[in-house]
Amino acid sequence: MLKLIKKQSKKVGLPPGALVHIGQRKTESARISVIDYNEQSFQEKRISAIEECLQFKETSTVTWINIDGIHEINLIDELGRQFELHPLILEDILNTGQRPKFEDFDNYIFIVLNMLSYKDDRRGVEAEQVSLVLGPNFVISFQERVGDVFEQIRDRIRNAKGRIRKMGADYLCYALIDAIVDNYFAILEGFGERIESMEEELVAEPTEKTLQQIHTLKKEMIFLRKSVWPLRELISALQRSESTLIRESTGIYLRDVYDHTIQIIDTIESFRDMVSGMLDIYLSSLSNKMNAVMKVLTIVATLFIPLTFVAGIYGMNFKYMPELEWHWAYPAVWLVMVTVAVIMLIYFRKKKWL
Amino acid sequence: MLKLIKKQSKKVGLPPGALVHIGQRKTESARISVIDYNEQSFQEKRISAIEECLQFKETSTVTWINIDGIHEINLIDELGRQFELHPLILEDILNTGQRPKFEDFDNYIFIVLNMLSYKDDRRGVEAEQVSLVLGPNFVISFQERVGDVFEQIRDRIRNAKGRIRKMGADYLCYALIDAIVDNYFAILEGFGERIESMEEELVAEPTEKTLQQIHTLKKEMIFLRKSVWPLRELISALQRSESTLIRESTGIYLRDVYDHTIQIIDTIESFRDMVSGMLDIYLSSLSNKMNAVMKVLTIVATLFIPLTFVAGIYGMNFKYMPELEWHWAYPAVWLVMVTVAVIMLIYFRKKKWL
Amino acid sequence: MLKLIKKQSKKVGLPPGALVHIGQRKTESARISVIDYNEQSFQEKRISAIEECLQFKETSTVTWINIDGIHEINLIDELGRQFELHPLILEDILNTGQRPKFEDFDNYIFIVLNMLSYKDDRRGVEAEQVSLVLGPNFVISFQERVGDVFEQIRDRIRNAKGRIRKMGADYLCYALIDAIVDNYFAILEGFGERIESMEEELVAEPTEKTLQQIHTLKKEMIFLRKSVWPLRELISALQRSESTLIRESTGIYLRDVYDHTIQIIDTIESFRDMVSGMLDIYLSSLSNKMNAVMKVLTIVATLFIPLTFVAGIYGMNFKYMPELEWHWAYPAVWLVMVTVAVIMLIYFRKKKWL
Amino acid sequence: MLKLIKKQSKKVGLPPGALVHIGQRKTESARISVIDYNEQSFQEKRISAIEECLQFKETSTVTWINIDGIHEINLIDELGRQFELHPLILEDILNTGQRPKFEDFDNYIFIVLNMLSYKDDRRGVEAEQVSLVLGPNFVISFQERVGDVFEQIRDRIRNAKGRIRKMGADYLCYALIDAIVDNYFAILEGFGERIESMEEELVAEPTEKTLQQIHTLKKEMIFLRKSVWPLRELISALQRSESTLIRESTGIYLRDVYDHTIQIIDTIESFRDMVSGMLDIYLSSLSNKMNAVMKVLTIVATLFIPLTFVAGIYGMNFKYMPELEWHWAYPAVWLVMVTVAVIMLIYFRKKKWL
Amino acid sequence: MLKLIKKQSKKVGLPPGALVHIGQRKTESARISVIDYNEQSFQEKRISAIEECLQFKETSTVTWINIDGIHEINLIDELGRQFELHPLILEDILNTGQRPKFEDFDNYIFIVLNMLSYKDDRRGVEAEQVSLVLGPNFVISFQERVGDVFEQIRDRIRNAKGRIRKMGADYLCYALIDAIVDNYFAILEGFGERIESMEEELVAEPTEKTLQQIHTLKKEMIFLRKSVWPLRELISALQRSESTLIRESTGIYLRDVYDHTIQIIDTIESFRDMVSGMLDIYLSSLSNKMNAVMKVLTIVATLFIPLTFVAGIYGMNFKYMPELEWHWAYPAVWLVMVTVAVIMLIYFRKKKWL
Repeated sequence: MLKLIKKQSKKVGLPPGALVHIGQRKTESARISVIDYNEQSFQEKRISAIEECLQFKETSTVTWINIDGIHEINLIDELGRQFELHPLILEDILNTGQRPKFEDFDNYIFIVLNMLSYKDDRRGVEAEQVSLVLGPNFVISFQERVGDVFEQIRDRIRNAKGRIRKMGADYLCYALIDAIVDNYFAILEGFGERIESMEEELVAEPTEKTLQQIHTLKKEMIFLRKSVWPLRELISALQRSESTLIRESTGIYLRDVYDHTIQIIDTIESFRDMVSGMLDIYLSSLSNKMNAVMKVLTIVATLFIPLTFVAGIYGMNFKYMPELEWHWAYPAVWLVMVTVAVIMLIYFRKKKWL
Repeated sequence: MLKLIKKQSKKVGLPPGALVHIGQRKTESARISVIDYNEQSFQEKRISAIEECLQFKETSTVTWINIDGIHEINLIDELGRQFELHPLILEDILNTGQRPKFEDFDNYIFIVLNMLSYKDDRRGVEAEQVSLVLGPNFVISFQERVGDVFEQIRDRIRNAKGRIRKMGADYLCYALIDAIVDNYFAILEGFGERIESMEEELVAEPTEKTLQQIHTLKKEMIFLRKSVWPLRELISALQRSESTLIRESTGIYLRDVYDHTIQIIDTIESFRDMVSGMLDIYLSSLSNKMNAVMKVLTIVATLFIPLTFVAGIYGMNFKYMPELEWHWAYPAVWLVMVTVAVIMLIYFRKKKWL
Repeated sequence: MLKLIKKQSKKVGLPPGALVHIGQRKTESARISVIDYNEQSFQEKRISAIEECLQFKETSTVTWINIDGIHEINLIDELGRQFELHPLILEDILNTGQRPKFEDFDNYIFIVLNMLSYKDDRRGVEAEQVSLVLGPNFVISFQERVGDVFEQIRDRIRNAKGRIRKMGADYLCYALIDAIVDNYFAILEGFGERIESMEEELVAEPTEKTLQQIHTLKKEMIFLRKSVWPLRELISALQRSESTLIRESTGIYLRDVYDHTIQIIDTIESFRDMVSGMLDIYLSSLSNKMNAVMKVLTIVATLFIPLTFVAGIYGMNFKYMPELEWHWAYPAVWLVMVTVAVIMLIYFRKKKWL
Repeated sequence: MLKLIKKQSKKVGLPPGALVHIGQRKTESARISVIDYNEQSFQEKRISAIEECLQFKETSTVTWINIDGIHEINLIDELGRQFELHPLILEDILNTGQRPKFEDFDNYIFIVLNMLSYKDDRRGVEAEQVSLVLGPNFVISFQERVGDVFEQIRDRIRNAKGRIRKMGADYLCYALIDAIVDNYFAILEGFGERIESMEEELVAEPTEKTLQQIHTLKKEMIFLRKSVWPLRELISALQRSESTLIRESTGIYLRDVYDHTIQIIDTIESFRDMVSGMLDIYLSSLSNKMNAVMKVLTIVATLFIPLTFVAGIYGMNFKYMPELEWHWAYPAVWLVMVTVAVIMLIYFRKKKWL
Repeated sequence: MLKLIKKQSKKVGLPPGALVHIGQRKTESARISVIDYNEQSFQEKRISAIEECLQFKETSTVTWINIDGIHEINLIDELGRQFELHPLILEDILNTGQRPKFEDFDNYIFIVLNMLSYKDDRRGVEAEQVSLVLGPNFVISFQERVGDVFEQIRDRIRNAKGRIRKMGADYLCYALIDAIVDNYFAILEGFGERIESMEEELVAEPTEKTLQQIHTLKKEMIFLRKSVWPLRELISALQRSESTLIRESTGIYLRDVYDHTIQIIDTIESFRDMVSGMLDIYLSSLSNKMNAVMKVLTIVATLFIPLTFVAGIYGMNFKYMPELEWHWAYPAVWLVMVTVAVIMLIYFRKKKWL
């Protein structure tokens, strides 16, 4: 399940910059892969020791170092020293459950976001913290586990599709953010479909399970919202940033991602409105059901209680009850009863209870 | 039905600027029509190849190129190349379901909005994305399908009505936006009428169908709101823009459209308040109904259950029951029963249940 | 009834500045009256042709031209030409249902507001659009029909009461706005009284009609709010305006009106809170009533159903029922019944149902 | 009772600056008292004519003129003339029910606020408008009636406690505001206690009276809020004001009052949240009660209706009913009935209805 | 219990800066401890008289003076005189229940915050006001009682862990704030767990106690929110402050704490949403229960009331009732009854009541 807050108790009281991994260990052992390219050349390899990265650091080619699995603290620590990252940055990378944010150091930019994925089978959203470090000609990405939404970007680099091979590290960084943001649309589509199918269920046959589902949906929406709102700030800050690491030509692409996050936020807010509308429908359908039950009870009781009373009257054992002796009394009583019943039925019909 | 989010899964992972048409194919084949005018001359024709547009590009006359049907990617791509549009712009044109926005490139302005139409027969709102490109002396408009709200503008150009023939491309662009915004009023009128007729229904005879209608209305309002809020930002940005493409004299007209969007937003917010008020009325009418049902049940049961008890007493078969032998016992029991009933009726009357 | 949106369908597609009257024809034929004054002189007359106004235009005296009835398009058009008003202004004057606003042209200022009036007999608020044009030494006011809140101002001018005769056209314009805003207080007082009487009704005897009244009140409040919020912006813009038409000495008076609109807004918001509080009370009073009904039913049914059962037992016709033969059986049964009833009554009393 | 709006109808249409007293006449005849002091000297007297004040106006000592009772228009008018106050200021002083505000004239500062007091016996809040005029070395305070929260300030001046005798008129003005604001805390304490005792009542035994109390509390909170929010603006404006009348050294004291108003606002907002939470509890306690009533009815009815039916069966008078003749039939029927009853009781117990 | 407002009545009317302790006396007698360090040296001692502190005031080492217990007014007063603190500051220190705030005096900075602690056993949050005074090379911290969240900081100083011994007083001050903020996470974790367990309870078996717990949770959230929002402003102001007391290198650490407070606020807002969602679930579960009760009643009553009526018919004592004489009448009546019952059961099954 999505958690709105991660266990941070391990960390309480430690000095700032102390490296403690917070979160589940999602990968057996950390995996480092490097993609190095410029317009002409391309190189991809999996490395096992941080030192191997260093050769790429000074070259003029763009280098993308991807780390899957951040629980190996030594490795992160080592990397931080090699690339001269601030201890607080390393702490944020390890401490999953961060709020998406952007920080501009002089010689690199640090970005944290949540990569979400929506699994049809589990009908739930999964979150993974992705941290990006953008340097002059390198991007380092930290993921909690293997598997991401970047496969198509790797493909574009490998096959020199689009303009990615012609652009710098800032464009690569943008592309990674864009892939993550685009993925939010897929998740929202999933939500849209669930909302629609739930609305049909609500009209057809609302059950207590429906309420549970509405509640779950609402909680996921709260989580999503908590992820996306800071994302907007992040991208807006990135856009307004005056860092020399982001070329002017990348600006228009960032504006595009920004528009997407606004659209995502709009959609989430609309979904929230719709979900709260569904709750109203659910509650009034409960009232409607109660009304229906009450009507049945009232009709039956109102019909038969007076008739039973009449029958009770002539079941009394008084010695002197003249009606009992009359020859047509029994059919007459039946006549009275049927008349009463018919009148009541007409009354109910008039009240639209039947 | 209106969808709050369009299927974008096709696009996930593609490089930015990749042209994929998102949305339903609403027109059989794309149709291009050109209107070229200045104060003296006027020319209108339907063309079949993009190349034919080029002759109008450099002339000093105002040229309006309208494309109905954006699913022909090649055509859009070709047009983009001829008019030197940024790939991201083309992507936004094809990718229907955009958030209304305004982007200022140096030599042209790009605008996306939603053209809504309210059909009385279907009792629903239909949305169509309209993209506008405003150049120095041309406007290109992209629509998803044939049929729009611009017919009167064409008429004004053809017959040189008003000042449109005397003004530049920026005024034409304004006129198109104005026509779309004006149309929102027609839609709001439709909503206003539906709300009023629903309110009458609510008072007279609320049914479960009424709730469904309120919910539908609410959803359409959410959609409308999602369309209009960014429209306001768009026009405000257009107004504040320092682009040389927009002459100062057009400023006052933009202020007028801006006022209209504010008015539309105010009205939508008021409608939302009223719709949520209707929900309260619906819910309390449910409670009122339940109360009415309960009262009937209570009156009947409370009247007859005690009387039936009395009848039951004298239906007992004890050997020694002195009352059974009395001569006036039977009428006396009747008297008691009628008295009890009358007292109860008086009680109910006092409680205002009758 | 108050309408949140006026029929504007007539206007859709027309060129901006096209003059079409939107709204009901509230006066038989338009009436033009002129008041011309300075500290020494005073002149008031009713004129029939626009040309007669022109003589006042250039004089140094302050001239107030008031037009009752704006459905005579030719007249407005003529006036617009004589005083060189922008076509969009004329359109706004005719097009009632405008949002209150302020526009600063170089040589005149244009103001639109709603003049409300609260009629005790109809228990409703009536709205009328008032447009003001403030020139260097004239004010033109446009009203939908005869009858306004300006009578006391006319009186002050006629009798040189207060400082109005000593001040310029901008002070006259302020005085008109002030009269309209002051009138809002009278309307709010009316609302306040209705809310109070409704609260008493709610406590004493809430009916379905009460709910209707709450809903009507809420709708009127929505309308009022929609009128007053832009009024605040209007006056604030007027205050901040750097137009030479507004002398510095008038600033303090505008601040005073501004304070009043803030106070009106505060009060409306408080009223809204109170009205929504009344709805809560109404709903819970419904629940309370239902509870009361249920209790009566439960007490009666719970008392008599067991007793009836006992009576039923001894109404059975078994051959071998020893109790039937006993001499004191009948009184004994009575004793049992009374005991059971008393126990139940004690139980109900303990539960506070009695 | 607190009123959210005062009768202002008297004033509609009057010229601005016309002096009309709005509000109840709270004091028999106006009372003027003067306190004049500097570090060395101190003088306190009650005066009867405005002229007596004038002698203090030009001296270098700090003078505090306090007027209890503002319904004597002549007196206020006279005072206004002597101290050269703007007519609009005098109007605001008389017109109780003003929104708290601050206005900076060149040679004096005008402040309006509400002095509240919470009476335990009446369980309600009372409001009184206090207007302050701060001049170079005098403070004039206007109150609606005798009795205020300034007694301790008078004491501090008389006995030269604290620094008040060493400071100027601006410090005195601050001290008066501070006393009023501090008093809000006492009122909030009262609210806090009422909320707490109401919460206990809600849990123990909610009645319709509780709902009434919650509603009253809510209304008082709305009133309080309407008083305090503008107070914050007022003090903030006072702090930012560049008037020479407020010495720099007083700035830190104003910051302190400002902090207090923020704290008051925070607390009011929290109280509002809590009161709306109490409403939820009240409503669900109503539902819980209904549930309890329904359960009793259902248990009794469900137990005895089937048993009565069985008794009814053997009360039939058919000639051929073999069971009637059986010797053990009667005890057998009892056995059946007891069994059915026990099964039902077990069922109810399982459902947790017992 | 947490109180939203502290008794301040003691203070009303006193001059500003008057020292009165507001709050419970939480410690027997005040305890003063001093930690003095620089990179090389370290000294820790408990002192009994304020004068002993003075020796540390002028040294270049960093001095942390911690006071547990603020009810000894003389001590605070003395300290204030020695360190030249403004009387308003001393007042704020004593007057617990302050809103978290930051004030910048020229030669020291004053900070107030709430230190919260969440006790699993009491299932509640406890608040304690901590005031910090940051001077050029000293930090004075005031706590209401013994016991805090600073133990790990003392440990880091003692053992020269991390960079704390190398940094100045501003870093120490940051570390104290950071420890308090970090502790909020622990509290939120506790809330998260309670919310989760309550959600499970809600689904499984909601009782009136559950509602009480939701309400308590909500109130604690209101309290938490009231503490944290100003905390954000405080840290933001600290960050933006241009005081020379805060070195530039500490800026990045403050940004880190700022991010944490934002995260805490986000989480609180999400929790609020979830708690209000739980209330909806609770209310609809009440309705569901009522529905279930009503169904049982309706089924039993609807089944047996008609059958009892039939039995009543043949219990009548008319002389001429042909059916009574028929040989198969009794079994036939049984057949009719069983048929009716079966039809009804089928009807109920169709309605999904069974």
